[in-house]
Formats: sequence, C-alpha cells, structure tokens
Amino acid sequence: MTARATDVAALAEGVAAGERRALARAITLVESGRADHRAQALDLLARLRAEGSPARGRQALRLGLSGTPGVGKSTFIESFGLMLTGQGKRVAVLAVDPSSARSGGSILGDKTRMEQLSRDPLAFIRPSPSQAQMGGVARRTREAVALCEAAGFDLVLIETVGVGQSETVVAELCDLFLLLLAPAGGDELQGVKRGIMEMADLILVNKADGDLKPAALRTMADYAGALRLLRRRPQDPEGFPKAICVSAVEREGLAAAWDEMQALAAWRQAGGHWAARRAAQARHWFEEEVRQGLLAALAQEPARGMLERLGQAVTEGSLTPEAAAARLLDRLA
Amino acid sequence: MTARATDVAALAEGVAAGERRALARAITLVESGRADHRAQALDLLARLRAEGSPARGRQALRLGLSGTPGVGKSTFIESFGLMLTGQGKRVAVLAVDPSSARSGGSILGDKTRMEQLSRDPLAFIRPSPSQAQMGGVARRTREAVALCEAAGFDLVLIETVGVGQSETVVAELCDLFLLLLAPAGGDELQGVKRGIMEMADLILVNKADGDLKPAALRTMADYAGALRLLRRRPQDPEGFPKAICVSAVEREGLAAAWDEMQALAAWRQAGGHWAARRAAQARHWFEEEVRQGLLAALAQEPARGMLERLGQAVTEGSLTPEAAAARLLDRLA
Repeated sequence: MTARATDVAALAEGVAAGERRALARAITLVESGRADHRAQALDLLARLRAEGSPARGRQALRLGLSGTPGVGKSTFIESFGLMLTGQGKRVAVLAVDPSSARSGGSILGDKTRMEQLSRDPLAFIRPSPSQAQMGGVARRTREAVALCEAAGFDLVLIETVGVGQSETVVAELCDLFLLLLAPAGGDELQGVKRGIMEMADLILVNKADGDLKPAALRTMADYAGALRLLRRRPQDPEGFPKAICVSAVEREGLAAAWDEMQALAAWRQAGGHWAARRAAQARHWFEEEVRQGLLAALAQEPARGMLERLGQAVTEGSLTPEAAAARLLDRLA
Repeated sequence: MTARATDVAALAEGVAAGERRALARAITLVESGRADHRAQALDLLARLRAEGSPARGRQALRLGLSGTPGVGKSTFIESFGLMLTGQGKRVAVLAVDPSSARSGGSILGDKTRMEQLSRDPLAFIRPSPSQAQMGGVARRTREAVALCEAAGFDLVLIETVGVGQSETVVAELCDLFLLLLAPAGGDELQGVKRGIMEMADLILVNKADGDLKPAALRTMADYAGALRLLRRRPQDPEGFPKAICVSAVEREGLAAAWDEMQALAAWRQAGGHWAARRAAQARHWFEEEVRQGLLAALAQEPARGMLERLGQAVTEGSLTPEAAAARLLDRLA
C-alpha cells in the first residue's frame, strides 16, 4: 500500500464514516514498519483528531480482557460480543499477542474462533499482527484502538493472554480491565499473580455451567475474598473490584456482567476517574514513546555499526562491557 | 566516602589481596549513585583488570540461586557455604533483590539469616542494597561479582527470590543456575514457569528430611520428568539439567549437589561453553549498558524539563502522546 495525501484524506473519511474496509486498511497502515507508511499513519491520526472531523472526540468503552489459554476467552468474546451487537452496539475486538514478538506467530484474534461474531456487520475483529517488539505492539494497538474509536465503535475489547508483560500493556490501554478465570478444583492454586489481581476491575469466573458450576461458585467466593484483602483504590466504588460467575457457552450471566461494567464506568465518569485514567495513560505512552524513540537510534547508523564492532570487541574480551558502552555513548552524545 | 586517586590505588591493592574490609568498601563504591564515586569505581575496576595486577584474570565459579520465599534458601546457603569453607574454599554471597527497586526495603542477603557463615573468615556476605532501577541493580551486582572475583573468591553465589525479572538478571550473571524448590504435596502445582525451568542447570528439591522426604522424592521425580521434556541445550552433557534432593537442615545431599555442579562446570569448560557463555553475557551487558546510558539522558536537562512540560500538555489533552514524543525527540536529536 502506498497512499498519497489524497488517499490518506479519503481513508480518514472512510474511517470516520465507520466503513470497515477503511478501518482495516487504516490499521494495516499503523501496523506497517515502513517510514513512509509511518508518516501517512501520523497524518491519518491527526486528520481524525482535527477540528471539523466527525470522528473528533469520539470515545468507546475500552475493555481489557486477560485470561490464560483454556479459560474460554474466545467463547466469551463471541457470546458477550453477540449480546452487545444484539442491542445494536458496535463492537471491535483487538488482540495484544505477546508471543508474536518472539515466534512471529499469531495465536490471538483468530476470526475462526469467533465464527458468528466475525460475520456480524456490527462487529469488527482484528487478528493480532506478527513480529515486533513489545514497544511496537503497544503503539500499534494504541493506534488501532484510536482508529476504532474514530470509526464510532461503542466498545473496543482488547484481548490478551495472561503472561505478565502484555497485561501491563493492556491495562495501560483500557478503561476497565477484566480477568477471565476457569473454575479451580479444590485447593488448587490458579497462580494468578498479585500484580494481575491488582489490575482487575472485574473477575469473571467462566464455565459456571453443568458439573463445573459448584466449583465456579467456590472459585468466585475465593476470589471475592482475595479481592476484599486488597487495598481499596480511589477509582473504585463500594464493592469493586468484584468477582462474578458467567457461562459463555450457556450465555448466562453476561447481561449481569455488562451491568456491572456499565455501573463501574458510569461511577468513574461521574467522579472524574475515567478522564484522569485516560490522562495518566496518555502521559505513560508519551514517556514510553520517548524511550522507544531514543532506543530506536541504536538500529540506525552510526550507532548500529558501532554496536556491532564494539560488541565484537566485548565478545572477544578486548574491551569490558562498561568501557565499550562508554565509548559508544560518548560518540553518540 | 570521597576517595582520591591514591586511595583508589590502595583500595585496588586491598581487594586484590583479598581483604574483606577493602572488598566491602569497594562494593559500596560501585553501589554509589554519585558521579565522582562512579568515576572512582570505574578506575578501581580498571586497575584490578590492568596488566600487572595480581587480580587480573581471576575467575570464580558464579552460581545463581533462585527460589521463592519458604523453600529454605538461607538455610541452604548457610549449610552449603559452610561445607565449602570447611574444604578451604572462599565463598562470597551476593543478593539481587527485586523488591528493593520498588519498596526501598532489603529482604535478601540478611546476614542474620546465615549466622555461622557470616562469622566464617572464608565467607563474605553482602546484603542487597536498597533503591534503584533493575538496570542499576544489574550493573551493581555485575560489578560486585567482578570485585569478589578480583578478591580471589572461589565461589560467588548470587541469590534471588523467584519473581521473574530478577531471575533473568541473575541468569545473565552466572555460570550455573540453581533452582531451589520445596517438596510439593500431591497434585499441587508449584507454578514454576517454563521460562525459569529452561534457565535451570540443576533443580534442588530441599527439605528432603523427616516427614517431607517422600514428597521431596516425588517432587524430584516430577521435575526430572519435566526436565526430560525440555529441548536438549548444547551446553549440557547427557543427563543435564538434573533434579536432585537435598536437606539443608540435615546437611544431606550437599556434597552430591556440589559434585554435580563441578562435573557440569568441568564439562562446560572443556567444551568451550563456559567461555562462550561469559562472552555472550558480556555482550548482553554491553548492549544493556548502552540502552541504560541512552535512557539516562532523560533524567538530565534539557530532556528532563521538556519531559515535564510536554508531559503536562499530554495530561491536559492539548498534545497527543505521539506528537509530544516527536517534539521532544526532535529537540534531543
């Protein structure tokens, strides 16, 4: 894709009009690593934010959703998404895939996992792209979220698999963070790290159906107890964070879960916490972008060649790591 | 401490002579954040590596040791360390404390936990310092290890608590990585992450004594089975990584564990894997030092003030994160 300025203007119009094909093209543009595409992507985002653009100021509810493989994330998104599109809401699903940074593969956001939702005209599902550093993943996802908001989606669901780093990225992108768990058997520890628990606004214990229902209820009670032990956060009304049961397969508890999310969102909007969180997130991403920008110099000449030559000297033992680093930093300064 | 050049020369002599007081002062110097101390620390390290220094080229066996709280890490270090000092070996114990980066507290390397070893003239125990970023922690520990090697220690044990990031730091600092575990009951999962398992050269199941002995043997067998499923690494002889039982309290199995470590170390030395690992680690730390050096510019003027002013504009919504970052990076370039 090589878009001229006129094309970018047309693309911005298409996105603002909520056209799915334009949105898909726009996301491809922000995902591109090419310098000319990058310039076009920034131009596109600026146009959508510019005064006079119908997209300006549009906000979606950004829902982060994390859960380890096997908890039923795809089924939940399918059922939950269809419930919302059934109410006339427009739902976008994006994925932050931590594995793609390493393996180049894409395990999330697979449309075939959400067959009905992917064919729903009110839904937009974007598989996660392959390759890139976590810094790049964060920026791309952030910009994809902005494009979905500009396209007028009511809800943007940002899904990730529970492995730590990617959850931190998602937590810094969303308004509400949902943690999806499977029922735990007996004394079994699910190994949910405290840091992840502390990010959660709502814990959803899935598979509360059939034989697993008692276990789901017990797990919900365990987590409700654990959540009560956490320090109360200023952005939470009484009773939050909360643990509830759902069944994605039986499509039960989803409306109640949505009620909880809406109640929490409304409370945070009224109290100014919503805007404060978005402002803090914007600042976080500004600083992160600066850090990534500084480090990007290392992939360019002259740093790149020096890194290679000095790195070789360090490997051979003719320079210490500290001395080699000092020499490179001196030359870059 | 403000040392003149002559003092640094005297300090280098003291360290090279293996004086514990000089070593303690030298580590304090590398831990300091002051710019003049930093220059002296680099001078000190260079003197110890210089031709003509008796410390030049000295190498210790660097053992990384990770284990979650409660597995008996301190008791193991005490028993294992005393066994080695009983053989006339000089043993240094350093700690990488991930919590100190956040809370400012120091939970590891507490001398009172290793009462006998801390009074042993052949041992040197250094509590982990408080405050600093993980980047700073890594550099300090790396330099402390180098000082212990220069002081002629035979073994440097680098201990950490099992929480992910700090283990990666320790793995990049050590020749052998030990994972200490407690016996697991029944089907209980200990939640050792695959990434940590893959770092381990030797898994030590502690508390193989009294009532826990059967559980320890079972846990050992479970981990031995899990280790066999991992891909064989070129740096491992047949049978490694290995899981064995020890009892730090009863001081049993420690000699066998030490035999395994020595066998593995000898095999790696003979095959060139030892030197290759140290070379790769040096290169890793060179690149890391460069990254940290670049990011350090953000704490200095003019970047610091710009970061604050532009960050404020982003928080208020008058600039997007991307536009603010681009402005700052432009000015720094």
